[in-house]
Amino acid sequence: MADGTIGWTLGDLAALVGGEVEGDPGTRIRRPVSAGVDDPEGITFCESADYLAKAEATSVGALILPPGLSSSKPALRHPVPRLAFAKVLALADRALPIEAGIHPTAIVDPAAQVDPSACVGAYAVVERSAVVEAGARIYPFCYIGDGCRIGAKATLYPHAVLYKDVSVGPGSIIHSGVVLGADGFGFMWDGQRRFKIPQAGSVELGAGVELGANTTVDRATTGTTTIGAGTKIDNLVQIAHNVTIGEHGAIASQTGIAGSSTLGDRIVMGGQSAVGDHVTITADVTFGGHTGSAKDISEPGAYFGMPAQPVGDGLRSYMMVPKLPDLARRIRELEKKVKELESQ
Amino acid sequence: MADGTIGWTLGDLAALVGGEVEGDPGTRIRRPVSAGVDDPEGITFCESADYLAKAEATSVGALILPPGLSSSKPALRHPVPRLAFAKVLALADRALPIEAGIHPTAIVDPAAQVDPSACVGAYAVVERSAVVEAGARIYPFCYIGDGCRIGAKATLYPHAVLYKDVSVGPGSIIHSGVVLGADGFGFMWDGQRRFKIPQAGSVELGAGVELGANTTVDRATTGTTTIGAGTKIDNLVQIAHNVTIGEHGAIASQTGIAGSSTLGDRIVMGGQSAVGDHVTITADVTFGGHTGSAKDISEPGAYFGMPAQPVGDGLRSYMMVPKLPDLARRIRELEKKVKELESQ
Amino acid sequence: MADGTIGWTLGDLAALVGGEVEGDPGTRIRRPVSAGVDDPEGITFCESADYLAKAEATSVGALILPPGLSSSKPALRHPVPRLAFAKVLALADRALPIEAGIHPTAIVDPAAQVDPSACVGAYAVVERSAVVEAGARIYPFCYIGDGCRIGAKATLYPHAVLYKDVSVGPGSIIHSGVVLGADGFGFMWDGQRRFKIPQAGSVELGAGVELGANTTVDRATTGTTTIGAGTKIDNLVQIAHNVTIGEHGAIASQTGIAGSSTLGDRIVMGGQSAVGDHVTITADVTFGGHTGSAKDISEPGAYFGMPAQPVGDGLRSYMMVPKLPDLARRIRELEKKVKELESQ
Repeated sequence: MADGTIGWTLGDLAALVGGEVEGDPGTRIRRPVSAGVDDPEGITFCESADYLAKAEATSVGALILPPGLSSSKPALRHPVPRLAFAKVLALADRALPIEAGIHPTAIVDPAAQVDPSACVGAYAVVERSAVVEAGARIYPFCYIGDGCRIGAKATLYPHAVLYKDVSVGPGSIIHSGVVLGADGFGFMWDGQRRFKIPQAGSVELGAGVELGANTTVDRATTGTTTIGAGTKIDNLVQIAHNVTIGEHGAIASQTGIAGSSTLGDRIVMGGQSAVGDHVTITADVTFGGHTGSAKDISEPGAYFGMPAQPVGDGLRSYMMVPKLPDLARRIRELEKKVKELESQ
Repeated sequence: MADGTIGWTLGDLAALVGGEVEGDPGTRIRRPVSAGVDDPEGITFCESADYLAKAEATSVGALILPPGLSSSKPALRHPVPRLAFAKVLALADRALPIEAGIHPTAIVDPAAQVDPSACVGAYAVVERSAVVEAGARIYPFCYIGDGCRIGAKATLYPHAVLYKDVSVGPGSIIHSGVVLGADGFGFMWDGQRRFKIPQAGSVELGAGVELGANTTVDRATTGTTTIGAGTKIDNLVQIAHNVTIGEHGAIASQTGIAGSSTLGDRIVMGGQSAVGDHVTITADVTFGGHTGSAKDISEPGAYFGMPAQPVGDGLRSYMMVPKLPDLARRIRELEKKVKELESQ
Repeated sequence: MADGTIGWTLGDLAALVGGEVEGDPGTRIRRPVSAGVDDPEGITFCESADYLAKAEATSVGALILPPGLSSSKPALRHPVPRLAFAKVLALADRALPIEAGIHPTAIVDPAAQVDPSACVGAYAVVERSAVVEAGARIYPFCYIGDGCRIGAKATLYPHAVLYKDVSVGPGSIIHSGVVLGADGFGFMWDGQRRFKIPQAGSVELGAGVELGANTTVDRATTGTTTIGAGTKIDNLVQIAHNVTIGEHGAIASQTGIAGSSTLGDRIVMGGQSAVGDHVTITADVTFGGHTGSAKDISEPGAYFGMPAQPVGDGLRSYMMVPKLPDLARRIRELEKKVKELESQ
């Protein structure tokens, strides 16, 4: 957030994000802040009495409260404080600057189609037969390869690279350093060297997908590597060739999904997770952090560990690892005692 | 693959990739497809009766079959179906567009040498004393630093970065977002702060190396970080300073090789693997996925797990982790019983 | 290092890096080399009798020796050989070329402030209200977003991306492919889809921070993601939104720090380590490689393993994993024997 913003009165905020003002509607708010931050011009949200106690111990200027919690501070009462807070965040945020139309330094192939309402930034390259739909924003240094399609209102941040035949759904957000459509990792060993298997397929992202910085999604050998609508992927994630991921999932940073695996809808994966190749994970599966499976999972539910187990079991196993030296000692002890018993 | 391709007749394909036609040589094929895909204009390959059964259950237009398998579908008979299929993939694939010569927006230092048959794309930067050999293709936004050498017919996809003194072997393929020759991670702790140890070495890739998207290879402190001819490395892999990797290896995504380690020829590593620093791994070692070693490995063979063990042992240990709570329970049970026996 | 350098005499080196010459001060040295390298024009350093024996077995031209070690080779005697060697490395190294001032192809917004002594390279973009301080070097293809501040003498290597409101401390080094200030990974599940929580905060790096190639640091939801002065971070590391890292730490490659965690000063982490979200790690904690904690750590010291334990315990547990099948066998054996004893 830039400093020196004039901000809003609490009354303004109520009009902008919904909710009822309690206390002085003229209270000046300049920025959303985390619970616990000391900022008389800040507003934070409280979902529980704990959050409220934490916020009341600070000089924060105003609170967003759910039904049932009260404070002497000025407040916005809202049925879902977190949602109202997200709306305040949206007001406080601002997009990276870009102007409508094609920047004079952008190189757009004459055979590409760019909607007049789209933005193509400085030093972007848009290759032949690419299509950029209405309201899409292509920031500087993006490379949009031959045959790519950028859906309406999609955003490609600076330095995104799309090789070719990559389709980005409407409203998707592709962060900087993302590489879409690089060659899948496919080779044949002929006894002496690795012969490259050409990767002739494509990548297709549904509507409202988000890909974090420096994440890579390889194009399929044949057919399509697919990420379903609404799925959100964090930074530095690897999605290999011919993977299919369902809709509305969330995959945290540094996770890797190996080739030809299929993940259902609403998959959630913690950071540094892993799925082996040719694995099928059914819908509504949640992986904790650093969880991996090289086997199919056909039961929805929460899993943890390497190898992944149902979360309770997985945590129990994981917490046993520090006890291994003790278990080994107790086994030695038992062996000694049993030997003594046997010799009696 | 672009739609609307005219494709080939089965007879054309036989002429282009080898093999004998069985059935109608005029069968129109437009694209290679995976086994199991329903596409009357597709061709797939069958290496076994299982694959054949899968393909015959679909409307796929033609098959590539080895000696000994037969089908009522039109087919191309070839001694190595996978190889013939790879050749069809090569026909179906197409390179990212680039024109020969130096794009008018590329900035090539007068003291760089670019072979007239090489391609340097839009907004590429080639620094002084860099050498770009015959037929090399440098795509847009690549940065080829001072003193780098790009071998004949090497390909650098958009947004590859080479700091300086990096040598890329002939025919190598460097994917987007790769960073070659950034500073190795070397610091001296002086009791108060970390003093940077300058990284004055270089990076050298042999012929036919392939590096996946967003992979990083640091330059050596002194001497050279080396990747041997024919070694293929996947996306998001970290190769630290002063590492030496032999020839014809294959290292899957998100693996990390720490500083000054040496890997022999034909090393294969699954995804998310790890090698500690100053470790030596002999030739012909294969790591499964998520396998790591901080110790030297001097016996060729397959390994698995953290710490890496011979694969059979490694898998057995790994599969015991979910059984730990049960083992602990059984130990408690034994302790109770032994105590009772002792008190008798 | 470029070949053909004229190098230095040993006497020159003594004047440049300190220390006393022993043997011929006219000895021609052209490059620093690692111990064990056979190079009559090289100089290496010996911290111990082992290093000395290794170096004396080669044709290396000269040595840097501490008090108490002697050699028949020409030598530079210095109280801290490693430091003197680092200074030789600095002499042998050279910066990537860049010219002072703003390159004619750089696009600098009229509302940005670039100090006349700063360098802005070819095809860099500097957005409105960005500030680039004295002596900073912005290499080609960097994107410096709206409201960013680049401290004095900071270096941004080719292809670094800073979204907005990112502050880079004086003397910091940002390697290629680093992405600073991309959106933190924050979403609300509304029962049907993931609603994006705007990320309205910023990123702040202290003085003398170094970030390795393709590392990502997300901007905070509100407030600031912070990396303290002097902290060095390797390649492909993920720092999530609202993380706070103290001063003078060192975090090796492929480590991930999840959202809202706080790490104290002088934290050291081996490669592929992990810290869960909302975790607090106190100052002076060291993690071995592939070490992770989802829980707070309040005792300084060295830790190892997943879950992280004090290093001795962690190593013992880790080394037990290969013994699990044997432990299970011994438990079965004990069960059998106890059963027999019970039936007697």
